[in-house]
Amino acid sequence: MIRFTVITLFPEAVEPYLRTSMMWKAVDKGLADFELVNLRDFGLGPHKSVDDTPYGGGDGMLLRCEPVFAAVEFAKTKDPLAKVILPTPVGKIWNQGMAKSLPEGHYIILCPHYEGYDERIMSIVDYPISLGKYVLTGGELPALVIIDSVVRLIPGVLGGEKSAEIESFSEGDNLEYPQYTRPENFRGMKVPEVLLSGNHGEIAKWRKEHSGKI
Amino acid sequence: MIRFTVITLFPEAVEPYLRTSMMWKAVDKGLADFELVNLRDFGLGPHKSVDDTPYGGGDGMLLRCEPVFAAVEFAKTKDPLAKVILPTPVGKIWNQGMAKSLPEGHYIILCPHYEGYDERIMSIVDYPISLGKYVLTGGELPALVIIDSVVRLIPGVLGGEKSAEIESFSEGDNLEYPQYTRPENFRGMKVPEVLLSGNHGEIAKWRKEHSGKI
Repeated sequence: MIRFTVITLFPEAVEPYLRTSMMWKAVDKGLADFELVNLRDFGLGPHKSVDDTPYGGGDGMLLRCEPVFAAVEFAKTKDPLAKVILPTPVGKIWNQGMAKSLPEGHYIILCPHYEGYDERIMSIVDYPISLGKYVLTGGELPALVIIDSVVRLIPGVLGGEKSAEIESFSEGDNLEYPQYTRPENFRGMKVPEVLLSGNHGEIAKWRKEHSGKI
Repeated sequence: MIRFTVITLFPEAVEPYLRTSMMWKAVDKGLADFELVNLRDFGLGPHKSVDDTPYGGGDGMLLRCEPVFAAVEFAKTKDPLAKVILPTPVGKIWNQGMAKSLPEGHYIILCPHYEGYDERIMSIVDYPISLGKYVLTGGELPALVIIDSVVRLIPGVLGGEKSAEIESFSEGDNLEYPQYTRPENFRGMKVPEVLLSGNHGEIAKWRKEHSGKI
């Protein structure tokens, strides 16, 4: 059983994806669980402020420590051993090996927003993670990417039990081979004959020859 | 003006993110436009089927050519010059340079789902893109990552005009420096004194020394 608690200022943008069929199926089968915590609920003062200007000058607003620590502590009340993931450009770049090897347990994904976060927030982060070498507005999409890539690998979540295993990246850096489905001839573009041959040896050979690598 | 048309089986999971404040602001200012096309509307037969089993055997279902070509052609009726982006593990890995240099225009992002897609679909794809070395259930999250990373760089979209420019990755591979906001002392963790000094030269020097690189 894997649990994800997403701490975000935009729960309404995150929740619908967690309701899609694969995610819902994982929850329905008791294989995964998702929870959303609205960071705004832990904001300061009458305006529930969560950010402030940087010391030393500079553009933009930074997430403050107080609301973030309070939200994480709230999320941990149910599970003090939960680990904290922070999507951040300085994090380790996420890959399929990390998705496969993430142990069962409870993960709190803290989504930064605005221009950045107070560095002291790093003191409560177990896993700083980056999706890749690009900048996003917030941590919401990285949170969903991490959740999706992990949950789909749980046995029993995808339709075909073997599907997740044979796919791209699952075995080293092998990419999958080109695939074709009906019709045989689509606007003059034909399915390679070998795939229609029924000759399993030849099909396997063709697929191996046409598998791409990174 | 940049336009994105997202072709997806799950518009309800994509749309809420496109309604978040940054995205909405970009549309409101006439800097960007988003459209969703439901691939299911182009499905075949009474069940609006969009997928079928692979020739040559194998697990899972593949997206068929007919609904995909029909949906892309529909999206292109308004703009025959629109370019097609396909999120796929065999694509070029997305990076900040690509986000910065994507020309203005109209992009159709075709979200695959199920276990894969008929290879002939590649014949209408201009940009095969991968988010990174991990596998996702569908192209919806990659579509949103591409859109978010591009739209936030449009001048006038983010609050502080300079914000997007000074951030991580924007200048070569420099990562940003650690940042701090109030309070000065949070649970015994103090803001580095130099940042409180008001000495701009020293602050700049400290920040340079503490900037991370990939």
